[in-house]
Amino acid sequence: MNHPIGVIDSGVGGLTVVHELMRQLPKEKLIYIGDTLRCPYGPRPKKEVKKFTWEMVRFLLKKNIKMLIVACNTATAFALTELQENLDIPVLGVIQPGARSAIKATQTNHIGIIGTEGTIRSEAYPIALKSIKANISVSALACPLFVPMVEQGILSGEQAENVISDSLQTINKDDDMDTLILGCTHYPLIKETIQKVMGKDVTLISSSEETARETSTILDVHHLLNIEEKIPNHQFYATGNLNIFTKISQSIFKYENLGKLTIENVKI
Amino acid sequence: MNHPIGVIDSGVGGLTVVHELMRQLPKEKLIYIGDTLRCPYGPRPKKEVKKFTWEMVRFLLKKNIKMLIVACNTATAFALTELQENLDIPVLGVIQPGARSAIKATQTNHIGIIGTEGTIRSEAYPIALKSIKANISVSALACPLFVPMVEQGILSGEQAENVISDSLQTINKDDDMDTLILGCTHYPLIKETIQKVMGKDVTLISSSEETARETSTILDVHHLLNIEEKIPNHQFYATGNLNIFTKISQSIFKYENLGKLTIENVKI
Repeated sequence: MNHPIGVIDSGVGGLTVVHELMRQLPKEKLIYIGDTLRCPYGPRPKKEVKKFTWEMVRFLLKKNIKMLIVACNTATAFALTELQENLDIPVLGVIQPGARSAIKATQTNHIGIIGTEGTIRSEAYPIALKSIKANISVSALACPLFVPMVEQGILSGEQAENVISDSLQTINKDDDMDTLILGCTHYPLIKETIQKVMGKDVTLISSSEETARETSTILDVHHLLNIEEKIPNHQFYATGNLNIFTKISQSIFKYENLGKLTIENVKI
Repeated sequence: MNHPIGVIDSGVGGLTVVHELMRQLPKEKLIYIGDTLRCPYGPRPKKEVKKFTWEMVRFLLKKNIKMLIVACNTATAFALTELQENLDIPVLGVIQPGARSAIKATQTNHIGIIGTEGTIRSEAYPIALKSIKANISVSALACPLFVPMVEQGILSGEQAENVISDSLQTINKDDDMDTLILGCTHYPLIKETIQKVMGKDVTLISSSEETARETSTILDVHHLLNIEEKIPNHQFYATGNLNIFTKISQSIFKYENLGKLTIENVKI
């Protein structure tokens, strides 16, 4: 089925999910909207996050999407169940794929999770992990500086390293924790530095990679995979200024030929 | 939902899927049947494999299973589509999860696949891989000695190493191949030796681990996950002699407390 997959995020973080979708499902057309004007969602109250999320979803539904991916952990934590109950297309968030992959990866049954204040406060990851496997222990830490840093385009270098190493100090002391979920789709953009700070013995789980992987499974189960061989035309929309959005898009996609791409500003 | 998950295999190989299901989905009750009397399926004609597969499936359907896992690559290659079309419960084979995971893992887009003659002859993996991502190149190799060796309980040591290293000689020369799918559920039992022969730069994909991971996704999508906290009573059946079946079960499950377990012989 050649209808597009819709992807929503509070800003640029969801582009890491898009990148993985392009890599793992190169035949699928993607329509992305990032609410860069009102990013970050992390510190906002639940009610407001839900309202903004629905505004993006309504925009995408008009474009005839066959599946919706909530590529924002905060929006997943606050709005996923409501979206799943109200839409008649498959809706996948970024929390369950990360949780399932971490359960697969851990040998010590001690999993760490870093995310925005909203994601951590919601306890969505511990709930998801423990509902599947009761004896998992979880260390959770909010990293409120990471998203604003990434949205400014600071992805590496001394400043990034200092912010990351200071922020992770508490969680870094948990010795038997062998798996750390990057519980925010912005974090794969600073994954290398996080890995350096955590050490190589900790497996980092990218909710972006895992969400793309599960999108493949879910499209297959629902017989929705696109079998056409045409190169897809992807459409990206951002509610705010396009400068940094375009710069970060380029830094994610520059080395690869992943289909055609248009970037537009939009009011929702 | 507390109904059991049904798992079928030609012999003991599917126990590696069962082990991963117990580890990744510890609340789920499992009913396993291994057709050890007529193993291996690899060299048998398609029609016969389909007949044997349906006999196992009918046995499990009487036990009210909520989902069926075809934990045998040969049976998946020959019978999966027919089972999916004829059963009203979700049916998952071991080929798609391995293929999707390999696409996620590869950076060079060159994937290797080893399996039984039946699996390799069916071309099920190349078809699955290329239908998702057209520019993947695939090197496939049948390893007819691995299943009989494992079914005799020979999992390590010099004899195993010689058989494995001789068998893998051809595929081992493909330099840019960075990912190798263990396209037979018996192979995780000899994974360490395969890794040693292939070298550490090749990522081995265990179709067993990946199938368990996707079972978790599919149960979630269909709202079939068990939320009860009771320790499950698993039931294992084998059509042949129980001696080696029990010995291999013990070698897979010995270190862990993964729920209660009964093993019985059965005629189908």
